Amino acid sequence: MGPHPAVAAIRLAVRRVLHDILTSHTEHMDPSGPAGSQTRPAPLVLVACSGGADSMALASALAFEAPKLGIRAGGITVDHGLQAGSDLRAAEVVSRMTALRLDPVESVAVRVGRDGGPEAAARDARYAALDEAADRLGASAVLLGHTRDDQAETVLLGLARGSGIRSLSGMAEVSGGPGRTGRYRRPFLHIDRQTARKACMVQSLPVWDDPHNADPAYTRSRLRHEGLPALEKALGKGVVEALARTAQLSRDDADALDAWAAEAESSVRDELGQLECAKLYALPPAVRRRVLRRAVVAAGSPAGSLFARHIEEVDRLITGWRGQGAINLPGRVEAQRQGGRLVIRQG
Amino acid sequence: MGPHPAVAAIRLAVRRVLHDILTSHTEHMDPSGPAGSQTRPAPLVLVACSGGADSMALASALAFEAPKLGIRAGGITVDHGLQAGSDLRAAEVVSRMTALRLDPVESVAVRVGRDGGPEAAARDARYAALDEAADRLGASAVLLGHTRDDQAETVLLGLARGSGIRSLSGMAEVSGGPGRTGRYRRPFLHIDRQTARKACMVQSLPVWDDPHNADPAYTRSRLRHEGLPALEKALGKGVVEALARTAQLSRDDADALDAWAAEAESSVRDELGQLECAKLYALPPAVRRRVLRRAVVAAGSPAGSLFARHIEEVDRLITGWRGQGAINLPGRVEAQRQGGRLVIRQG
Repeated sequence: MGPHPAVAAIRLAVRRVLHDILTSHTEHMDPSGPAGSQTRPAPLVLVACSGGADSMALASALAFEAPKLGIRAGGITVDHGLQAGSDLRAAEVVSRMTALRLDPVESVAVRVGRDGGPEAAARDARYAALDEAADRLGASAVLLGHTRDDQAETVLLGLARGSGIRSLSGMAEVSGGPGRTGRYRRPFLHIDRQTARKACMVQSLPVWDDPHNADPAYTRSRLRHEGLPALEKALGKGVVEALARTAQLSRDDADALDAWAAEAESSVRDELGQLECAKLYALPPAVRRRVLRRAVVAAGSPAGSLFARHIEEVDRLITGWRGQGAINLPGRVEAQRQGGRLVIRQG
Repeated sequence: MGPHPAVAAIRLAVRRVLHDILTSHTEHMDPSGPAGSQTRPAPLVLVACSGGADSMALASALAFEAPKLGIRAGGITVDHGLQAGSDLRAAEVVSRMTALRLDPVESVAVRVGRDGGPEAAARDARYAALDEAADRLGASAVLLGHTRDDQAETVLLGLARGSGIRSLSGMAEVSGGPGRTGRYRRPFLHIDRQTARKACMVQSLPVWDDPHNADPAYTRSRLRHEGLPALEKALGKGVVEALARTAQLSRDDADALDAWAAEAESSVRDELGQLECAKLYALPPAVRRRVLRRAVVAAGSPAGSLFARHIEEVDRLITGWRGQGAINLPGRVEAQRQGGRLVIRQG
């Protein structure tokens, strides 16, 4: 008799990702180094584990699949220090990962700052700690336990910003790391939360429910416990899957349009490198806005403070020209139209 | 003292659209016809009015603004015949439009079929009747009362399909009509429902609340009364605006990518007009999928039955080729890979 379907599903998801990691690991081996696969060190893959059902399921699947592929499997838990006793809990997660025979296993304590709100600050601290640990341990990849439900929530959070399809594209299956080499992998983006929980249950893995996940002070928690269920009630059970599919399609669309804009940007500059309004006007609006955004960011405007309405105002210098003055943008950047050219510079 | 801000807002929205209609009306006048503006017939603009707050507000603003611009303003109400007494109600709406001094004013009875569900069938019957009336009366445009809230609901309905950014792009400000000349205009897409209702109240216009709008048997009604309020509670009051902005941005993005795909399609065909797999492979995934979709529709697959998962399967003939057989698509269309070519044809 094979494993429970939930366990089979999480293992298959991890196996696929490990195969992919092995392929890129082999491709990226330094050809000047010692040759012959027997002298190569076995690659190390880490799981980031909070002790919750998603990441415990991920840890169990990694522990099961990695040895079969000659991969070493380790685990990191991050102690955010935001609750009393968080260090004890981190130690408990370490012992659970050790019980799964992950090695090395570490707890890393971080200090969470305040930038960008509590959720963003915790996330920044967490990724910095995971990056440090991965570098120090020489890991080829770090697996993250985000599920399809997390992805759906991320799409809705992006939708609430109303800033276009890039913010609808959710989390990538592969992302981050030094030089954006794709250190982080999310094997469970097509697995639902219920499957991960079931896989823990049938494997008798103890899981820990983060009280933050149920705290209505957090936007994501409100979305999870009230927003999404109401949306499912109105639109049907397929909403989570539809949101996850929207993420993937939006990501590909945004990538294609970004590539177009990068190419278009050079074609709309004159010999002095200035943006020609007539050529900008001839671009499709979606491409023109992206070219403008790139130019404004290049001039020193912080991407995170630049909203759709800023770019729309700059766009009106091209499409609705009636002699308006310079437009002030975040980061002391100014955009103005001068003699058929769009001049964007930091003041 | 000027009008109430809500009345000023709806009038401004209508005035802008009427200006735009006048401009295109003048541009499209037959130059071989009698010259001189005094001999041209005044253009006629109709409002589609259900008697609800949104379209009554629209009718009142049209009645106020049109005469100032030399435009004749008329109104149509569609009697869907779905409730007992709907003919009496239509007669009542006619008398309310007449009271606003719209002329001509008509009630048009339709028979609602069953195709595509009750909401789609009613919509199809309604637009057919409006098209017929606009043709018969020689109207330059038909105004529709859809508000920003309707737009937000439409985006969420599209999101639930999970079929990509075209379905997130909601309703267009200008659409439809013979040869897609843009007969239908939606002046209120940036006006919220509350403003329309307020404008009726302060103008003492009686409005009629369609019981369908509160009937939980309808998806849109559930979304309006439960889904969207829960989403606003989780994500904040800006959700409706964010959804409406997403519609506009998605529409522009989808238009640009469609244009790219149309151009790419000719470049990936060989001298016999067959699709070359190697050239398809080199396209960005977002463009390739659109090219494939165009080719499948051109081969006879009905666009409405063709889902993202169909196109993904065809795409795997290009990106994940391992000798798989022919793929069956809606409308008895088959796609298969043959000697480096993708062959798509109806069986």
